[in-house]
Amino acid sequence: MHIGFIGLGNMGAPMARNLLKAGHRLTVFDLSQAAVAGLVEAGAKAAASPAAVAGTDAELVITMLPASAHVKGVYLGEDGLLAHVRPGILLIDSSTIDPLSAREVAAAARAHGNPMLDAPVSGGTGGAAAGTLTFMVGGEAADFNRAQPVLAAMGRNIVHCGGAGNGQVAKVANNMLLGISMIGVAEAMSLGVALGMDPQVLAGILNTSSGRCWSSDTYNPFPGVMDNVPAARGYTGGFGTDLMLKDLGLASEAAKQARQPVILGALAQQLYQTFSAQGHGGLDFSAIINLYRKDAQA
Amino acid sequence: MHIGFIGLGNMGAPMARNLLKAGHRLTVFDLSQAAVAGLVEAGAKAAASPAAVAGTDAELVITMLPASAHVKGVYLGEDGLLAHVRPGILLIDSSTIDPLSAREVAAAARAHGNPMLDAPVSGGTGGAAAGTLTFMVGGEAADFNRAQPVLAAMGRNIVHCGGAGNGQVAKVANNMLLGISMIGVAEAMSLGVALGMDPQVLAGILNTSSGRCWSSDTYNPFPGVMDNVPAARGYTGGFGTDLMLKDLGLASEAAKQARQPVILGALAQQLYQTFSAQGHGGLDFSAIINLYRKDAQA
Amino acid sequence: MHIGFIGLGNMGAPMARNLLKAGHRLTVFDLSQAAVAGLVEAGAKAAASPAAVAGTDAELVITMLPASAHVKGVYLGEDGLLAHVRPGILLIDSSTIDPLSAREVAAAARAHGNPMLDAPVSGGTGGAAAGTLTFMVGGEAADFNRAQPVLAAMGRNIVHCGGAGNGQVAKVANNMLLGISMIGVAEAMSLGVALGMDPQVLAGILNTSSGRCWSSDTYNPFPGVMDNVPAARGYTGGFGTDLMLKDLGLASEAAKQARQPVILGALAQQLYQTFSAQGHGGLDFSAIINLYRKDAQA
Amino acid sequence: MHIGFIGLGNMGAPMARNLLKAGHRLTVFDLSQAAVAGLVEAGAKAAASPAAVAGTDAELVITMLPASAHVKGVYLGEDGLLAHVRPGILLIDSSTIDPLSAREVAAAARAHGNPMLDAPVSGGTGGAAAGTLTFMVGGEAADFNRAQPVLAAMGRNIVHCGGAGNGQVAKVANNMLLGISMIGVAEAMSLGVALGMDPQVLAGILNTSSGRCWSSDTYNPFPGVMDNVPAARGYTGGFGTDLMLKDLGLASEAAKQARQPVILGALAQQLYQTFSAQGHGGLDFSAIINLYRKDAQA
Repeated sequence: MHIGFIGLGNMGAPMARNLLKAGHRLTVFDLSQAAVAGLVEAGAKAAASPAAVAGTDAELVITMLPASAHVKGVYLGEDGLLAHVRPGILLIDSSTIDPLSAREVAAAARAHGNPMLDAPVSGGTGGAAAGTLTFMVGGEAADFNRAQPVLAAMGRNIVHCGGAGNGQVAKVANNMLLGISMIGVAEAMSLGVALGMDPQVLAGILNTSSGRCWSSDTYNPFPGVMDNVPAARGYTGGFGTDLMLKDLGLASEAAKQARQPVILGALAQQLYQTFSAQGHGGLDFSAIINLYRKDAQA
Repeated sequence: MHIGFIGLGNMGAPMARNLLKAGHRLTVFDLSQAAVAGLVEAGAKAAASPAAVAGTDAELVITMLPASAHVKGVYLGEDGLLAHVRPGILLIDSSTIDPLSAREVAAAARAHGNPMLDAPVSGGTGGAAAGTLTFMVGGEAADFNRAQPVLAAMGRNIVHCGGAGNGQVAKVANNMLLGISMIGVAEAMSLGVALGMDPQVLAGILNTSSGRCWSSDTYNPFPGVMDNVPAARGYTGGFGTDLMLKDLGLASEAAKQARQPVILGALAQQLYQTFSAQGHGGLDFSAIINLYRKDAQA
Repeated sequence: MHIGFIGLGNMGAPMARNLLKAGHRLTVFDLSQAAVAGLVEAGAKAAASPAAVAGTDAELVITMLPASAHVKGVYLGEDGLLAHVRPGILLIDSSTIDPLSAREVAAAARAHGNPMLDAPVSGGTGGAAAGTLTFMVGGEAADFNRAQPVLAAMGRNIVHCGGAGNGQVAKVANNMLLGISMIGVAEAMSLGVALGMDPQVLAGILNTSSGRCWSSDTYNPFPGVMDNVPAARGYTGGFGTDLMLKDLGLASEAAKQARQPVILGALAQQLYQTFSAQGHGGLDFSAIINLYRKDAQA
Repeated sequence: MHIGFIGLGNMGAPMARNLLKAGHRLTVFDLSQAAVAGLVEAGAKAAASPAAVAGTDAELVITMLPASAHVKGVYLGEDGLLAHVRPGILLIDSSTIDPLSAREVAAAARAHGNPMLDAPVSGGTGGAAAGTLTFMVGGEAADFNRAQPVLAAMGRNIVHCGGAGNGQVAKVANNMLLGISMIGVAEAMSLGVALGMDPQVLAGILNTSSGRCWSSDTYNPFPGVMDNVPAARGYTGGFGTDLMLKDLGLASEAAKQARQPVILGALAQQLYQTFSAQGHGGLDFSAIINLYRKDAQA
């Protein structure tokens, strides 16, 4: 299939490479010449603008952009996708943005005759490279079915979450819960150890009790409890505190618009913000445990 | 074995019955005559006071009491266990109390020549009746080994958590994390549904993503998502809000004494307190989601 | 002076009337015909659009609009003020919006040759009618001096807060502190009364001690402590919970953009949101004390 | 008057000196020989124990002790005050302890025939030395009247707060509000400055607006805004973070016993705990602003 791909950053570039590996033809665009050159070397064709991508005979266009403002610019701008793409072409936005913006762009696409899916991912740059991302997809079932084989070239778990915007809803809801749970585990582990327990024994109990959660049994933040997690390598790699902060910002913004209280969610956002403001925004988000560990303060 | 058993409440009575069923001889005490009569009918012998229990030839004494003050009274009082029990007899306190009080009583027991274990349980009255409780046990390994077969008559999962008090530490750490996770799930589910997602689809995504936790995949608080959970029966049964509140009070008290921050833990305590003060302390703790659901406020 | 005035809502209409009373000539615009008619009856001239207001010989234009989107629409739209106003005319926006949007609009005005002030108010509809508002003004000192006599016809306290946007900064900072203090007073009063103190005695002590604050000594939320406050009349009138919620939303949004933690501020926002979601958004914000008073829950 | 005085620490010693200066005869006790020697040099008589103080012909006994456990020990112990003091002698406890413990000791005193007042103070060691403390007094009006002239030798502001324990209630309620307000001011000042405002201009606006409070207009935490406050001298002197933490611990404990939510109060406690755990417990509590100021983190 001929696919347009816009946005070749840390996530978008390896995703596009996986599409090439799966045998698709790609026309790509990014503001960074270097990013484009990398994909061209791998077999893609370069386009000079989003409009130029839309002007090819690509049957499907995927975008992977940093934030809501970029998505609106690429889709809705005068020189944007919607002004130039042929009706009927399927548009897929894999950026993580707030659900209401996703719905606004999808409605504009529909008005222009283009079906659109929001399809944010989880799995990080590692998952993007390995082709094992999870896609949370919002939009019509028929469009989801059409997109499924293409997304399957980039991910392992492709979930239909309901109508337009629901991919974003699922992502912000999950990541808000993740951000809360991680702090909950950080507090429970720190409290137990401060009261004299061995961290591995404590983690073993939590993981077989009602406190069990992904942040404890798969990504434990206490150093020495697990191998192959950021806590085992000084909180490098993984999912950065500032990325978690971005997602919590999207969650609290969406909650504000829905007039829905998210009390622990908002507090979690502030705690990651506090940690980031102390200069640790580049560390994996599980490093938030250092807010709680006295021996780690020095 | 001849076992003394003090405290025959909602938890203690069915635990004692399971010891009788397993073939042990029991001498029991409780302030409630009716509670004692029930056990006597089942084959136990009654004693007139904790001291009288201690005065028998019981090889092991188990206590199951409501709070720290009762435990100190029964063990340390002038007419208490330690003043009358023979040295060497193993003492097991299954009450849920703060770790520092547990250590204080254990140290007093040790000074008197009695090994002691703290062995709080989880699993509720259902688990007590079915003999499927989890015991979190603090104390010496040799004493744990001696107690293990006796506890196994009342529970399925008997975990050694380290030295004296660590059973209590494990319990408060786990239950604090549970209390936080449940509110996290309540917020994530409420937010997702307020933004237009189907609750079952959302739960399915959380349960296979990084938001996965016991509160979501085993005890989901949103009505209609799971059968056989309190949310499916108007939040009756289960683990009462006021019991969660008691455990969060123990956690924040222990944290205060250890000078250990527990930010989300303290906020969770206040949210359950708010819900309880609104008259809902008797509902299962997963009903905390009603603080967040607009349609549930009426 | 000939003044243009755009936005004749609950605040704008009485403000415009006070300008007329002070002898100024007014050309006004609002989407509501009825609102315009009211001012025309009082002596103003009507204009058909913001552009039409700009097209008169008004020496100064004031806007009073609900939110950032309206301000951007009126100033920056194709048919907006900046596209039609003569260079040099002083523009004053009295809307309460986020500081960064205020700075964006001010920069656009400056680029067009128009000095601009942000001048949000406090004092509510009562202060607007009585001409006793406080104006918090951001912009150049010379422009502030030029605006001062005009603003003085509508307010009593006209404060220069520094450069563009700083009027908004002062307002969100003050109102965030107000929102926090009010909940603090609600908690302190509820706690003291729950522990057996007379509310008037307690308020008297707080008001002469280090807990002293406006929310306690001027606007006490506990019924019976003061006359002439919303708590004395069922929390009617005053400053609505949903208006406080709007200002806390601006504060947390500005904090997010500045990467500045506001932990209590974010929690206060969530508590007012919880109270609003329970159906009380129209009550004065001091009614938040009902979240805390058991006897008030029925 | 002949007065017994027990507890000659940082607060008790200067208070006792002021009683001597006012012409009273004093019999004193403290565990520290040095503390006793200091008072003896100033004219007091030493006693060997609380019981020995009680055994003199003192007409009134004042205690000033660190915490609830010490108060219970001195009053209720076998060798304590109540076991040896003559009925009718007025007892005044100026320690800061939880209200329920204060009521328990007062009830025991009353049962023994001794009227008792709880009379915690504010004003710090400076106020104790200068004789300008505030006394918040709980107990019978007649007893208050009897104590008033004696307390007036040590303080300037002597307030009757109602029945037994209400002095403690007033103190914990006020200090909880103070702890919250200070963080509120810290957040508002940090936010305003992060958004570009001058701290002195911002403080001036807060202090004349609805955000006005003691923490802002009398004890502003932002360096450079006021002279003669801890913020002007590196947060030395003043009211230590760990003392604020103790009072917030008393407030949340009293709230727990009263089943009264204190949501911001509990969060404030955790934030001071976080700051203390980072090694800053000895700094004035207004230093909490350093949790929020990026430039102060280095």
